[in-house]
Amino acid sequence: MYRTNTCGELTISDVGKTVTLSGWVQRSRDLGGMTFIDLRDRYGITQLAFNMETNAGLCEKARKLGREFVIQVTGKVEERHSKNMNMPTGEIEIFVDAITILNKAEIPPFTIEDDTDGGEEIRMKYRYLDLRREPMRKAMELRSKMAIETRSFLSAEKFIEVETPVLIKSTPEGARDFVVPSRMNNGQFYALPQSPQTFKQLLMVAGFDRYFQIVKCFRDEDLRADRQPEFTQIDCEMAFVEQDDVLNTFEGLIKHLFMAVMDEEFEGPFPRMSFDDAMSNYGNDKPDIRFGMRLRDLTSLVQGKGFKVFDSVEHVGGICAGGCASYSRKQLDAITHFVTKPQIGAKGLVWVKYNEDGSFKSSVDKFYTPEDLQKWAEKFNAKPGDLLLVLAGEKGSTRNALSELRLEMGEQLGLRNKKVFAPLWVVDFPLLEWDEETQRYHAMHHPFTSPKPEDIDKMKTNPGEVRANAYDMVINGVEVGGGSIRIHDQQLQQQMFQALGFSDEEAQEQFGFLMNAFTYGAPPHGGIAFGFDRLVSLFAGLDSIRDVIAFPKNNAGRDIMIDSPSAVNKDALDELSLQVVKKD
Amino acid sequence: MYRTNTCGELTISDVGKTVTLSGWVQRSRDLGGMTFIDLRDRYGITQLAFNMETNAGLCEKARKLGREFVIQVTGKVEERHSKNMNMPTGEIEIFVDAITILNKAEIPPFTIEDDTDGGEEIRMKYRYLDLRREPMRKAMELRSKMAIETRSFLSAEKFIEVETPVLIKSTPEGARDFVVPSRMNNGQFYALPQSPQTFKQLLMVAGFDRYFQIVKCFRDEDLRADRQPEFTQIDCEMAFVEQDDVLNTFEGLIKHLFMAVMDEEFEGPFPRMSFDDAMSNYGNDKPDIRFGMRLRDLTSLVQGKGFKVFDSVEHVGGICAGGCASYSRKQLDAITHFVTKPQIGAKGLVWVKYNEDGSFKSSVDKFYTPEDLQKWAEKFNAKPGDLLLVLAGEKGSTRNALSELRLEMGEQLGLRNKKVFAPLWVVDFPLLEWDEETQRYHAMHHPFTSPKPEDIDKMKTNPGEVRANAYDMVINGVEVGGGSIRIHDQQLQQQMFQALGFSDEEAQEQFGFLMNAFTYGAPPHGGIAFGFDRLVSLFAGLDSIRDVIAFPKNNAGRDIMIDSPSAVNKDALDELSLQVVKKD
Repeated sequence: MYRTNTCGELTISDVGKTVTLSGWVQRSRDLGGMTFIDLRDRYGITQLAFNMETNAGLCEKARKLGREFVIQVTGKVEERHSKNMNMPTGEIEIFVDAITILNKAEIPPFTIEDDTDGGEEIRMKYRYLDLRREPMRKAMELRSKMAIETRSFLSAEKFIEVETPVLIKSTPEGARDFVVPSRMNNGQFYALPQSPQTFKQLLMVAGFDRYFQIVKCFRDEDLRADRQPEFTQIDCEMAFVEQDDVLNTFEGLIKHLFMAVMDEEFEGPFPRMSFDDAMSNYGNDKPDIRFGMRLRDLTSLVQGKGFKVFDSVEHVGGICAGGCASYSRKQLDAITHFVTKPQIGAKGLVWVKYNEDGSFKSSVDKFYTPEDLQKWAEKFNAKPGDLLLVLAGEKGSTRNALSELRLEMGEQLGLRNKKVFAPLWVVDFPLLEWDEETQRYHAMHHPFTSPKPEDIDKMKTNPGEVRANAYDMVINGVEVGGGSIRIHDQQLQQQMFQALGFSDEEAQEQFGFLMNAFTYGAPPHGGIAFGFDRLVSLFAGLDSIRDVIAFPKNNAGRDIMIDSPSAVNKDALDELSLQVVKKD
Repeated sequence: MYRTNTCGELTISDVGKTVTLSGWVQRSRDLGGMTFIDLRDRYGITQLAFNMETNAGLCEKARKLGREFVIQVTGKVEERHSKNMNMPTGEIEIFVDAITILNKAEIPPFTIEDDTDGGEEIRMKYRYLDLRREPMRKAMELRSKMAIETRSFLSAEKFIEVETPVLIKSTPEGARDFVVPSRMNNGQFYALPQSPQTFKQLLMVAGFDRYFQIVKCFRDEDLRADRQPEFTQIDCEMAFVEQDDVLNTFEGLIKHLFMAVMDEEFEGPFPRMSFDDAMSNYGNDKPDIRFGMRLRDLTSLVQGKGFKVFDSVEHVGGICAGGCASYSRKQLDAITHFVTKPQIGAKGLVWVKYNEDGSFKSSVDKFYTPEDLQKWAEKFNAKPGDLLLVLAGEKGSTRNALSELRLEMGEQLGLRNKKVFAPLWVVDFPLLEWDEETQRYHAMHHPFTSPKPEDIDKMKTNPGEVRANAYDMVINGVEVGGGSIRIHDQQLQQQMFQALGFSDEEAQEQFGFLMNAFTYGAPPHGGIAFGFDRLVSLFAGLDSIRDVIAFPKNNAGRDIMIDSPSAVNKDALDELSLQVVKKD
């Protein structure tokens, strides 16, 4: 038996007991007559004590133990002289009688401490050491707990967890599918699922009524800062439901998670905001509503006053940064620099200071009178002391730039506290979006998303205005989940394919299999999928999903710990009837 | 709102309520004045009633509904005239006021009944219809429940569920790895894991102490009757444990599952049987101990009596089939036929009838006296009325044939009741097995499996006799799980690699990554993995794991529902720098 107790559980009430502990040497302190060692395991840290006077041999042995050595000790629990009330075991120490070295350890390439000296690259390479640090372990424990609570909530709501296949069919439109050559079916390939979408809809056709799965999904694409080639979804689908049923059910899930994991209770329903409102008020379909600072449309107010920059554009909009009228020239220049960065793309910034004394000072005083600026300020409900920041240009890109500026100002003003959570639903998404390149409509969500019944008439006359029964859940500016009510009616599905510019043959070729299943009695159904990695990182207050994945890949899709992907030898490729072709 | 209730919940106490139900038309009966429809959903079946006299139009409409139509009905709950006490809703029916057809259905290619008329091929092709049948749905519900109970038990035991990567590194020995070409790393491949073995050991190095995961694993190999290219494991690992700790913990898991899912309680610990005992008593390392009929070694007893067949062989062994002395010539011929089939491979069968009157009649009366046969009978503790069945040949193959014969006789005698469960641990497996082909030892489990400390001395002198700290859990003759205590000591690991005939370089090349991790303080650890599909099929009393997988593949590794794997177009292959080479 390696231990009678863990390193996190002994307290003052255990004093006098003889115990055996096993763990890692966190640190040791040699105080001359006494040597102290902090012994660590997953459950905590316990102090070990050795006395040079009473047992010099053992004390010498203890002094030779290096960091991260794995040891087993037996000794008596004693009350500490100087207690540390910040840790559960802080009132006791073990007066050690025997040490066994279970394993030695090389000196780790970085310190195993909360604030380590290791950079990201080396921590990724030695991930098994990085995971020894408490913040990493806590993130993994949080993840495990959130999965448990998700399952517990959904099971209570009669959802069945069903495992769908990982080896599925590659599809023509699956440009980002990972493919998997089959040895038994030479020259043929499986694909890894980007989501279990088809299978969950089939489970509804099969009458499973309520399905969920916490499931790995895969996407082979250039990884932006915070994407992973394999990621985890909470994937869900329900039959015989309308949009409200889905929203209420999964609002319940998120509330349960906040309560169970963060002890945070939300009163009343989450706000529901239309896509149009989100775009006009926040310039963004995933608004961070922890703070206001909404976008205002100034176009009609500011045009026709002789300022060419404004007169020549489609859209003029702005935000009001509360209490920032005192910003210095340097601060305003920094904001201008921010909005004109290529990623933001504004041409310039117009600012208006609504001074504390009620006067105005702006970068466009030549064109606008104080009375004009007073009207701007009214548009924002600005108070003296506020700063208006105004951008102009094409409507979409201006809103986008304003959204970025709003988030930046929110950050600067401390309005984006990671411990505050502001969830909402964004609803009424457009069904279709126009693609300039291919000169046709694409499904914004996917081709099985249902249009709103009241908009179906517009499918032929004005497809761009048709709204979908689609919804996203957004928390703190992050889209954590999204879904839709699906089409279950054959004729409506055909109309949808027509709107998307598919011929009957193309529709059949690409989606025939699911459409065929739908001819055998498909119930009305809809669902949602949550990005589990994202949800966990949000709860954990961490910026990257990499921090909540045990063994993540880097931005080049590589696992640098195991050095993968890697070359495969010719024999293995031969068996698969494959050849690697060198690119020029 | 599509429904106020499900089709499984209305009872006599709901009589008088107006309700709305949605579901599938299971069947309809037209009794002239009345029409009855059984409406089905996941939760049950409710009878709908229509009266020709009171509402002819609605009744006509109901009569036109085809099987598997999806409908919504509103009506009043009424007490039935002729009750069906076999179903929860059998005392009531809905007297329907309104029907909405939510979706029509083509006539299904097979009947959606417990005993369907569809063959396996067509049921696989239309899996979404097959899953509508109650036995299939119940199997999926059982699977979901077993996963929940597994997680609940292990979480209570402080195990953390950690997701390990699906895209890992292909290894030289991974002849059965599926590989996945990477688009971002052209010409390089990931591999899909055959198990998360490396990662779970790394999690122990990381100090996670107790890890589990219900996880998909992959193996690209010819599929025997009941294997799948993707399968699910309950994968577990613990630190600071000895073999008994692991056995006790996971015996607890299996007991919990039996109790929670089957309401079956096991008193006391599961039997533990050594590999040697399993082989000599059952001819098999996964004995079905629902019945006795143990193998007996007759070699020394029967040799030297002039019967050449026995005198010339390594091994003579047999079983005693209780109460079968009355078998006819035809029955004995059938047994002979069974054992001489190529898959069983015996050369012939010797039988001895221990007649009710105490006399003997055998197929070798020419060579053995009744006194000789009496001694045989004593070896088996046979009683008058029993039948001895004896095979001879090389020891291994004879034991194997006897094991098959024993299972066959157990089957014939009704000793293998699927509702009876007989779990045990098989322990003390050999560490190494000799491979004739390569003329060297292979690890029976894997090269990180720990030898028993008391056998370490034999590693050099007599490697074949070294036993491992490895164990299998066997239920009803099925290996449901297996694992081992791992080596955590560097020097012992080197000895192991030497015994396996690896040079230091080879060991470094193939296992260097994990060995390197072990230099930073690896704790003693060990674990186990259960085949989840197998475990569920065993609990469900089903013969094939395909019956407990929602969307399985056939024996050729194909999903015939989605027609996968399939060809990938040239553009996609070009992007991966791959070419399919036609085989001659």
